[in-house]
Amino acid sequence: MTHLEQLQKWTKDHHLDFTYLSNPKTIQYLTGYYNNPYERVMGLVVFPDDEPFMFAPDLQVEEIQKSTFNGPVYGYADAEDPWSKIAKHVEKRVSDPHHVGFEATNLVYSRVMALQGAFEHASFDHDVSELVKQMRMVKTPEEIKKLAGAGREADFCFKVGFHAVKVGATEDQISAEIKYALMKRGIMFNSFPTLVQAGAHASEPHNFTSENRVKNNELVLFDLGTVHDGYMSDSSRTVAVGHPDQKKLDIYKTVREAQQMAMDYAKPGVTAESIDKVARDHITKAGYGKYFLHRLGHGIGLSTHEFPTIRGGNKTIIKPGMCFSIEPGIYVPGVAGVRIEDCVHVTETGVEPFTHTPKHLIYVD
Amino acid sequence: MTHLEQLQKWTKDHHLDFTYLSNPKTIQYLTGYYNNPYERVMGLVVFPDDEPFMFAPDLQVEEIQKSTFNGPVYGYADAEDPWSKIAKHVEKRVSDPHHVGFEATNLVYSRVMALQGAFEHASFDHDVSELVKQMRMVKTPEEIKKLAGAGREADFCFKVGFHAVKVGATEDQISAEIKYALMKRGIMFNSFPTLVQAGAHASEPHNFTSENRVKNNELVLFDLGTVHDGYMSDSSRTVAVGHPDQKKLDIYKTVREAQQMAMDYAKPGVTAESIDKVARDHITKAGYGKYFLHRLGHGIGLSTHEFPTIRGGNKTIIKPGMCFSIEPGIYVPGVAGVRIEDCVHVTETGVEPFTHTPKHLIYVD
Repeated sequence: MTHLEQLQKWTKDHHLDFTYLSNPKTIQYLTGYYNNPYERVMGLVVFPDDEPFMFAPDLQVEEIQKSTFNGPVYGYADAEDPWSKIAKHVEKRVSDPHHVGFEATNLVYSRVMALQGAFEHASFDHDVSELVKQMRMVKTPEEIKKLAGAGREADFCFKVGFHAVKVGATEDQISAEIKYALMKRGIMFNSFPTLVQAGAHASEPHNFTSENRVKNNELVLFDLGTVHDGYMSDSSRTVAVGHPDQKKLDIYKTVREAQQMAMDYAKPGVTAESIDKVARDHITKAGYGKYFLHRLGHGIGLSTHEFPTIRGGNKTIIKPGMCFSIEPGIYVPGVAGVRIEDCVHVTETGVEPFTHTPKHLIYVD
Repeated sequence: MTHLEQLQKWTKDHHLDFTYLSNPKTIQYLTGYYNNPYERVMGLVVFPDDEPFMFAPDLQVEEIQKSTFNGPVYGYADAEDPWSKIAKHVEKRVSDPHHVGFEATNLVYSRVMALQGAFEHASFDHDVSELVKQMRMVKTPEEIKKLAGAGREADFCFKVGFHAVKVGATEDQISAEIKYALMKRGIMFNSFPTLVQAGAHASEPHNFTSENRVKNNELVLFDLGTVHDGYMSDSSRTVAVGHPDQKKLDIYKTVREAQQMAMDYAKPGVTAESIDKVARDHITKAGYGKYFLHRLGHGIGLSTHEFPTIRGGNKTIIKPGMCFSIEPGIYVPGVAGVRIEDCVHVTETGVEPFTHTPKHLIYVD
């Protein structure tokens, strides 16, 4: 059964008149077609016993018709009301729908109300998000191949980035060299803006690249990824310039060990929270617990962050085909930030990383 | 009154216990602080008679405390439930809230339900989106200065991009040269991925840059923008390679005239739809009406697309300080696509563009 057929079956099993999919990534997952309509309206409408249709802004209709989506495509002009137009197309298939499925984790409240206005007697009480989440969480061999391709591109970024690190270079400049090298290879999209953080700046783990310059005897943190055939990579490495002091080397060693312990531990049958715990306990024992501010990891696929989330409290059982990041970090304000991250896929017996850049401390300049 | 104080007044005027702001751009508008928490939860909670607080993932707390937001900042760990934690902080100020404002055009349905679960007796029936929209729609002189800065950067992109156009170059390569030149200047963020489309490829107006190569006697379309101090630019130009045939020159001339007519017409007091009509009527009269697939323009500011929307049916009255794009286009499948776009700000008597790259047909190679 294809993913789209599973969606159709769910719609039928729940006795719904139709299901409205709104998340562009869900639509990509089900049809192979991707574009982001931003504030415009794009939806995939799935019926229990009839072919699905796509509804999109007029200016996307030509490209959808040329895409891997084979059903009818209906457009709307910017001057038209999309909701009443969707209703017209739906009502050719089902008159006066009563039960509708939708993506509650994606559709904003005002659009649920707009759909409600277009379908007077419909109740929007069936959230399809959980089904989509479960489907997307376990990857097919084909998806894993694409994630591996994205991983190879991340490895290429590290090679270029490490080479660009020099005392006096700004984080922005290093990031620019990576982007240019990627684009010259025809790799046009990053999964998120490349992060390069030197010295104490890396202790702000969610901040941006800046004009901060690389100094001698510091650590430099990279966090980066690309989009390969729709699938994301996301990987971090931290490298040394000159001779960082013992404190910094100790932080690095602790993160390195924690990451390896979690890699060695993760396998089918364990819970997501237990993988987090393995890394967190090691960091806590070394005295850095309060500096590990985030979850151990997140799922990856068509989105950079998806399921399963590798965090305390998540009892999801790990299964073969799941793909997620393992990324412990220690951020000591004013001193340094270290993060080491691989995304992995779960095999029958353990996990295999998509990135292969070495993880011993590399001295780059 | 500051923007944040206006929000507070609205909360008070509507007798609400608090207003929950969730759109990162709204939070940036009200506090000056910006970051995108992706799937994590970040909210600004505004009270009628008490100072607002920010709620964010632990890993953003340090940077928010250092930012222009002066109120208390409360964090949550990835393993914690954010909604019950928000409720705890709110209940220190108001016990058992009954009336709550929120951003219905931003908050997804499942999160409204999560908030409902955390505040048992609250009704979420006051949408603050319209107030935020009205506030953001009219820019301050300071905002216009930043938009002008972004416009200058777009002009720089055109200079680099036109120089990179050569017969045989791919769209991707030209886009790479622009990105690299920007990053070397420390301009790290584009407002959207730079679009370069050569020849008939430009007839798909919402598609991506590709490995398609520039051929002789074609038109090449650029659509690009940067982020300058949080504010966006967005501008399009179409240039000629060799000697495009009369049909293409005629399409160009029609778009050029339509764009100028709309620029000359737009001023305080006219409606948004009437500006669209001026350009659309000209294109229709020339016989290309069905090839102008989209609205004439969109507002611009902290977001690339905001209000006012310049489209048929929008009766919004144009006022001084509004900023929007004027971007007619003609897309003839298999032949060519032409778009010319400036973002403008409305003065007391007309409009002034943020971009100044010439609009006569430029022959680049």
